[in-house]
Amino acid sequence: MRAEFVNPFLSSLLNVLKTMAALELQPQKPRLKKDEVARGDVSGLIGMIGPQTKGSLSITFDESLALEIMERMLGERPRSIDEDVTDMVGEITNMVTGGAKRMLAEKGFDFDMATPAVVSGSNHTITHKTDGAIIIMPFQSSYGSAHIEICFD
Amino acid sequence: MRAEFVNPFLSSLLNVLKTMAALELQPQKPRLKKDEVARGDVSGLIGMIGPQTKGSLSITFDESLALEIMERMLGERPRSIDEDVTDMVGEITNMVTGGAKRMLAEKGFDFDMATPAVVSGSNHTITHKTDGAIIIMPFQSSYGSAHIEICFD
Repeated sequence: MRAEFVNPFLSSLLNVLKTMAALELQPQKPRLKKDEVARGDVSGLIGMIGPQTKGSLSITFDESLALEIMERMLGERPRSIDEDVTDMVGEITNMVTGGAKRMLAEKGFDFDMATPAVVSGSNHTITHKTDGAIIIMPFQSSYGSAHIEICFD
Repeated sequence: MRAEFVNPFLSSLLNVLKTMAALELQPQKPRLKKDEVARGDVSGLIGMIGPQTKGSLSITFDESLALEIMERMLGERPRSIDEDVTDMVGEITNMVTGGAKRMLAEKGFDFDMATPAVVSGSNHTITHKTDGAIIIMPFQSSYGSAHIEICFD
């Protein structure tokens, strides 16, 4: 998977969190996921289908970071990952994927998005089942970490 | 969502587990998911996109049931949910959705499938983010329970 393919997702997450929550994440270097397992507490997942390819995307947050985003967006901090938090994570997943979709469409790469699902559970992992490569993009902040994983067959 | 739409997914899971693992699950009555939260230890998730609609499907297993299926398929029981188990859950998710897709195509309802992702984590929950209804189909066995959730916008 080429960099021109990865960067739209990376910059889309940075944009969404800056715009919605005035939060700046520090992106780390994207890399191929091999034995690495990324863990988190709340994740958004979405399927993508295009004319030549199909794949999936996940965005995983530490609980502390998800709660900080909620507080910055709504002015109130939930005590734990509740329905408002999973709604927000689903919405962020839609916005990030939609933003990347628009950027990739300009380069002639089209796909449609399924509806997102949100996983909630302390320290869970997600494995994308694909014959192709899986790219992991880690993000750091003083409130905890996030990461995007994408794969296309 | 009508019964003719739900039954293909239900019968597809029963068929897959009977064929692959000689295991008969007892299906419970499918119902609209409202406040109900279903928990499990390993889940397969897949996005679906059709000309008129899009949605997502999840199949969630108790760890004890997932390990029993592995033992019946491979003759050996893993100690916990490892990569072989997540591979199997991804494969079951593909087969169940593919089986339902064929049955629904005969009725004139078409959709394409994204690639599956598998969630692993003790006692996690999945929330499908949709404007439409979410249907939950519970299944019982002496080894633990499973449930399918599907939504279409």
